[in-house]
Amino acid sequence: MRRVAVIGIGDTEFGELWDSSFREIGIQAGLIAVADANISADKIDALFVGNMSAGRFIEQEHIGALIADYSGLARDHIPATRVEAAGASGGLALRQGFQAVASGLHDIVVVGGAEKMTDVSDTESSMIQSSAADQEWETVLGATFPALHALIARRHMHQFGTTREQLADVAVKNHKNGSLNPKAQFQREITRETVLSSPVVSSPLRVFDCAPSSDGAAAVVLCPLDQAKKYTDMPIEIAGSGQASDTLSLHDRKDICTMEATRVAAKRAFDMAGISHKDIDVAEVHDNFTISEILAIEDLGFFNKGEGGKATEAGLTALEGQVAVNTSGGLKARGDPIGATGLAQAVEIVTQLRGTAGKRQVKDATIGLAHNVGGTGATVVVHVLRRV
Amino acid sequence: MRRVAVIGIGDTEFGELWDSSFREIGIQAGLIAVADANISADKIDALFVGNMSAGRFIEQEHIGALIADYSGLARDHIPATRVEAAGASGGLALRQGFQAVASGLHDIVVVGGAEKMTDVSDTESSMIQSSAADQEWETVLGATFPALHALIARRHMHQFGTTREQLADVAVKNHKNGSLNPKAQFQREITRETVLSSPVVSSPLRVFDCAPSSDGAAAVVLCPLDQAKKYTDMPIEIAGSGQASDTLSLHDRKDICTMEATRVAAKRAFDMAGISHKDIDVAEVHDNFTISEILAIEDLGFFNKGEGGKATEAGLTALEGQVAVNTSGGLKARGDPIGATGLAQAVEIVTQLRGTAGKRQVKDATIGLAHNVGGTGATVVVHVLRRV
Repeated sequence: MRRVAVIGIGDTEFGELWDSSFREIGIQAGLIAVADANISADKIDALFVGNMSAGRFIEQEHIGALIADYSGLARDHIPATRVEAAGASGGLALRQGFQAVASGLHDIVVVGGAEKMTDVSDTESSMIQSSAADQEWETVLGATFPALHALIARRHMHQFGTTREQLADVAVKNHKNGSLNPKAQFQREITRETVLSSPVVSSPLRVFDCAPSSDGAAAVVLCPLDQAKKYTDMPIEIAGSGQASDTLSLHDRKDICTMEATRVAAKRAFDMAGISHKDIDVAEVHDNFTISEILAIEDLGFFNKGEGGKATEAGLTALEGQVAVNTSGGLKARGDPIGATGLAQAVEIVTQLRGTAGKRQVKDATIGLAHNVGGTGATVVVHVLRRV
Repeated sequence: MRRVAVIGIGDTEFGELWDSSFREIGIQAGLIAVADANISADKIDALFVGNMSAGRFIEQEHIGALIADYSGLARDHIPATRVEAAGASGGLALRQGFQAVASGLHDIVVVGGAEKMTDVSDTESSMIQSSAADQEWETVLGATFPALHALIARRHMHQFGTTREQLADVAVKNHKNGSLNPKAQFQREITRETVLSSPVVSSPLRVFDCAPSSDGAAAVVLCPLDQAKKYTDMPIEIAGSGQASDTLSLHDRKDICTMEATRVAAKRAFDMAGISHKDIDVAEVHDNFTISEILAIEDLGFFNKGEGGKATEAGLTALEGQVAVNTSGGLKARGDPIGATGLAQAVEIVTQLRGTAGKRQVKDATIGLAHNVGGTGATVVVHVLRRV
């Protein structure tokens, strides 16, 4: 397999983008990435698009062709492929793009992710998000997506003594990072009290434990590493790509406090890259709920099982901590337009490894990780990126 | 890139399968394919699933993980990826599986396609199918999927003198083939008169010009060609894979009587296989409407532009014709469970190349082709399969 590099990145603002359509934001992110890569559009060999549920959010399937068409790429009839794995759709699209370049099938590949969530009501949006869980055994019985994560949080608190305050600390940190990111949906710092006094969504989780509904898009441009220097002085290698599945239903897992798919996907990515978790300087992890970040930093190996809450409280995941986690603000503050999220994570890691993250720059960041989760962990995709 | 072979095939009945759920039919097809490949499940490295719109048909996204889970593959945390390109979802999943094996990333890959269309009303089903077209410029203005194809048919009749009877002949041929296929949704022969006296759907297209709504699933097992003999005496090589996009809206095309994406995808597949259209003995083409088959056999190069209707009337696409087209019965009679269709095409071609197609066997079939279309031609995937 050929080695693969990221040579361009682009993303839109995340938020309630009521003045822009799905196709507009998708193209906007792609255009920024293509400009950043210093390539002309006629160099592009293929397009991959991550999207969870445009069929229900905007009544449009066939998203790959849509984006190819409206970005002018259909003129050259380039292959356009949409990939879906709920919240992991973006990371999975990145993996397909990686695979297309690694195989030798394509040279220059654009991978984008987009979702337009705020054109439907909050209730409808919640129902659509729940279609990431098992429709027959979870959703239809009333287990919403926040409720499933509340079960995980409750169990983690019971088993490891994780405190309500430690959950809040995840949100406080990510809002602080978001305040340093001009593209974040929420750029305001909050306090523990903000979280603890916000309305309950599904006990113990409150509004400020949950990532928002967002519109947004993000994209990267890939090419073989040995061609990357033609386009950029600072190519970032995709050194490892790991993907793993698990049971769709939470109740079928041996242990709901461990996302086994995270452990397996991370191991696969680390093995491909020839590194361990200790080598990671900066990580974007899937904090759709505060408890999710605590599970992630444990299952990725940064901290022992049960110690994620304490580590967060101690500041070990802050910008200057042992490993900087969710420097972009994460899903919590950067925003979570589902299909875009995995790509936005990659964009942030590339930004950090290039050393262009401004006020939120992690010093000497050399190796970074993006961790993207579908459902309650039935799909996990982990990518390791490296400065070369 | 490594050469890739199909070593197992499986499919369910197509039809109104009200006693089976989506996940049940998906797994059934996979199990048949895995048994046919003589492998044990622990050999499987990855799963790809083609599906158009489970989000709307059964309110379930995250289909890759669902099928991995219910087939027991989530136990080993194997990567599971869902791919979507409307009607081309199945062919596109096959291409992703091909790419995964060709790249060296995975050895044994199962590719499945499934759709459960008949659990919603006909009106709802029609609306969902229309989400393959452009929601902002076609669907919302009332252009249904049959209406868009009616425009193509009308223009083809006007420009080339294609007759209403020739359109009917496509359906008559495919029903005849379907009558020889024990798994076809419709196993009854029809006459020209059956078609011409059936109710108008969108003039000039009548009920018998349209493929049905179907439930069903199909699957194949892939591995590197140089390992295939371990599993089967008769591996079938995927000798060429081509994919192309075009404008999502029909009105943006230069010429609605040509599916440019078919021509480009076919050229890419032929070039990869080192063959031309003249080498094809048997072809499954995307006859979601009778006019679609006429366009396909022209754009694939079998007949000159404008002569597809005459060729069909003359029997040149029959079982004993110049090139046998839609020996399975095609989408028209075999059925069209959208995401499954591209895989069902591959299953039929492999069956023909193995020489096990029974009463519908094409004599000495050596090279076959599968042609899968999304929307009105915004995505086309063509695969060339070959006996080795």
